[in-house]
Amino acid sequence: MDITKMLSGIRLNPAQSTPLYLQIATALSAKISDFSIPVGAKLPPERELSRLLGVSRTTAINAYSLLEERGLVSTKIGSGTFVSAGSTPNQSQSTQMPWDQLFAPGYKAPLSSIIRSIIASPTADDMISMAAGMPDPAFYPLQMIQSALDRNKRAIDAADFGLIATEGYLPLRRSLAAWQTSLDNPATPDQILIVSGSQQGLYLLVKSFIEPRDYVIVESPTYLGAIQLLEAAGARLLTLPPGNKLDLAMLEDYLIRYRPKLFYTMSSFKNPTGSVMELAERRELLRLAEKHRLTVIEDDPYSLLYHGSPPPPSLKQLDSFGGVVQLGTFSKNLFPGLRTGWVHAAPPVINRLAQEKQFVDLHSNNLAQMIVHAALEENSLPLHLAMVRREYKKRRNAMAAAIKKYCGAAMRFELPEGGLYIWGRLNPTILPTELLRRAAPFGISFIPGDAFYAHGAVSHEIRLCFATHDEERLAEGIRRLAKALNVATAAESLPAASAGRPII
Amino acid sequence: MDITKMLSGIRLNPAQSTPLYLQIATALSAKISDFSIPVGAKLPPERELSRLLGVSRTTAINAYSLLEERGLVSTKIGSGTFVSAGSTPNQSQSTQMPWDQLFAPGYKAPLSSIIRSIIASPTADDMISMAAGMPDPAFYPLQMIQSALDRNKRAIDAADFGLIATEGYLPLRRSLAAWQTSLDNPATPDQILIVSGSQQGLYLLVKSFIEPRDYVIVESPTYLGAIQLLEAAGARLLTLPPGNKLDLAMLEDYLIRYRPKLFYTMSSFKNPTGSVMELAERRELLRLAEKHRLTVIEDDPYSLLYHGSPPPPSLKQLDSFGGVVQLGTFSKNLFPGLRTGWVHAAPPVINRLAQEKQFVDLHSNNLAQMIVHAALEENSLPLHLAMVRREYKKRRNAMAAAIKKYCGAAMRFELPEGGLYIWGRLNPTILPTELLRRAAPFGISFIPGDAFYAHGAVSHEIRLCFATHDEERLAEGIRRLAKALNVATAAESLPAASAGRPII
Repeated sequence: MDITKMLSGIRLNPAQSTPLYLQIATALSAKISDFSIPVGAKLPPERELSRLLGVSRTTAINAYSLLEERGLVSTKIGSGTFVSAGSTPNQSQSTQMPWDQLFAPGYKAPLSSIIRSIIASPTADDMISMAAGMPDPAFYPLQMIQSALDRNKRAIDAADFGLIATEGYLPLRRSLAAWQTSLDNPATPDQILIVSGSQQGLYLLVKSFIEPRDYVIVESPTYLGAIQLLEAAGARLLTLPPGNKLDLAMLEDYLIRYRPKLFYTMSSFKNPTGSVMELAERRELLRLAEKHRLTVIEDDPYSLLYHGSPPPPSLKQLDSFGGVVQLGTFSKNLFPGLRTGWVHAAPPVINRLAQEKQFVDLHSNNLAQMIVHAALEENSLPLHLAMVRREYKKRRNAMAAAIKKYCGAAMRFELPEGGLYIWGRLNPTILPTELLRRAAPFGISFIPGDAFYAHGAVSHEIRLCFATHDEERLAEGIRRLAKALNVATAAESLPAASAGRPII
Repeated sequence: MDITKMLSGIRLNPAQSTPLYLQIATALSAKISDFSIPVGAKLPPERELSRLLGVSRTTAINAYSLLEERGLVSTKIGSGTFVSAGSTPNQSQSTQMPWDQLFAPGYKAPLSSIIRSIIASPTADDMISMAAGMPDPAFYPLQMIQSALDRNKRAIDAADFGLIATEGYLPLRRSLAAWQTSLDNPATPDQILIVSGSQQGLYLLVKSFIEPRDYVIVESPTYLGAIQLLEAAGARLLTLPPGNKLDLAMLEDYLIRYRPKLFYTMSSFKNPTGSVMELAERRELLRLAEKHRLTVIEDDPYSLLYHGSPPPPSLKQLDSFGGVVQLGTFSKNLFPGLRTGWVHAAPPVINRLAQEKQFVDLHSNNLAQMIVHAALEENSLPLHLAMVRREYKKRRNAMAAAIKKYCGAAMRFELPEGGLYIWGRLNPTILPTELLRRAAPFGISFIPGDAFYAHGAVSHEIRLCFATHDEERLAEGIRRLAKALNVATAAESLPAASAGRPII
């Protein structure tokens, strides 16, 4: 079949809110459904498709990958992409139920679909993603963990693969409590709840504490996942202003005026800014929290990922009244696919969270818990952490140097002392979502700053993750970003510019 | 220290709602906290403790195990149980926050704490639990899965251990769709969502469809996890009456009168009764569902665990209008610790569930998904299923024979053709929760029928799981149950009996 004919009538609209790859997939899907592209037909190679439709190769790859996921095409390595036989099963089914009318009204996070597609999209060879907060897969200590697990296998009983307590695999709760205690953060097993990633810990906390219209204090900007969860639960967010200092006067004002349920914070190497709460601020915060019986959620994924010296003691370590709930995770220290994190809190909190967790998934995955337990038993974390700290510092330096070299005055930043991100501040005429759209054809991505502000505030910042790629790729990524910045700046200076058009 | 002195002043009250092991643990904990039992002291051996306090050995074991979990004691194998140094950290903390006033009002399932403690309590040597729906750990195909994984390892990339799409590990979504298609249940990957056990699938469905005061139809009795989730979400449950026939006239009446959002059912080997919906009933149900645009949730953990011939085609297989959402799981077929199940539904439903799932845990555990994928790729399920079907049939027969032999007229039942349970009907003078309390000293457990009825209906039935133990142990378990039945019956005939007192 003639390729031009195959693609005839496909009109893409970059101005539309639907991403280009989805527009392409939908158009091809329609042609497959009405047999204008027959079963068995070979689709144009990705490179050809991207050329013919004037889109990036990543967009073409994503379109085919979606069609494959829908079972409409299959890829044979070396030969190409073909329309599958039986590629239209149940087509008639899906249209008969008015699903959108049947669903309960749902919260739709302003930027959630873009974030999901960033996480889900396959990374093409030529793509440099600085978006997701993903450690480099090359650093995942898979071999170390395999050996630790093999050596500890004797201690595992077949029954350990059955249903276990909602609170977690008891050997892990013990070894985790011992590990935290060894880090001067005393814990007993009944203060530990194992969760399926710290995201789940936060979810359970929100379920357990928040009713619609409850007040919650957050910093601005802050972790986008926390904003989304809290907004979805109907919380009213009280924001503390941007800046490196915690505005304690405003915090106390909020406490007196609104009696908020929670204060959510990342005290060390905050996502997205990388800032660290000073020791004096921590103490003053806890003094206020104790006085007003405020529950403080300390989300702590990054405190062990410092580049120079460790951050001050955590809020949990300084906690004298038991009101701090700490969230920990192995996603950044070991690898995200473990989906294993923990909540460290007073036993009544652990108990309440476990009641909620029982509904959500009965208990977290046993295998991952055995793996983490084996790693803790063998004390293999310190060596691994020393390695990744060294590597991330190199990468941070490489990204920082590249920004200075290629972007110059067009982007400013402060060098973070830990974590995975550089928080870049753009010229106020540039909208980060617009820059993201301009950056796509250059094969790079990042997260626009807007995502990290509650109340849909407009930001002129972007979050760049330096953990995923090596120094050379990072320098190349920033070189491309500088080009996109040039294009965006040039477009801004034209009066008819399309600035402000959202990309989703 | 003298053991008698150590235990002095401990008064247990079996009539109290607090379980005995918790009463013991609390009493010992108080003595450790006020140093009346000093750090380093050796506690009496479990057997001694049970003798001195007049409780079962299991109760003593559970009490020590709870103290160990709280970090108050530690067990040295071969030497005994000792009060830990630093056994009172953060004691002062937990009391300062008024946690109960801070939590959002939560749903408390009437029997959830008993179920949780049944699942969580360590199985003592002399304990025969017929409570949890747990496959026998001896049947977990750990070796088969290890080999399958080893052979398929080449296909796994380090990046597969990173963050993946919320919908699931794409290779698994593909192999699962292919497997279901091979079972005459056509599926494409975009109709499959991987979830952390089918419990999570149900949780996400309830989140996506149900608002407070929505109507939902359930059979009576039905799976207790479904009742709890729906009640917690504020749904109003419309129940179809007990019995082997689906009351289709009442179902249609409900559909017209209340326009319910969902009908939740287990069509094959229903938990707890083991009953199977006949083919004609399935067709008529679907006719009604199509006419009224009713979403049918078909929870299907047991259809492959038949003892004789397979059940009729599933509702999903017969679904002509796309309104059936099917839940599947590997917990019963492989092992529960995988926490891997799936939802099979129209793509708009999968998409909505994935939005909710992103909040709950981003995505399910990668390792478990790789394991299941490897097992499906190697087609190793059929052989394993053939083995467990054979074994479960033997066990069902052994339990059935023992009930006839030991319980006689005191318990009636119908022989189930699949699944893991016998549903025993007691003499109406006996309350199952009272029987459970009487059964504990004999070292057996089961689930009282009340848990499977919405609206707190009083039942005279009990659910007995025959999957966990071998034929000999099952016969012994039923022999002990018969003894407990005798005690309960004798107590009932006394006018001053304490019948009706809840055990929790």
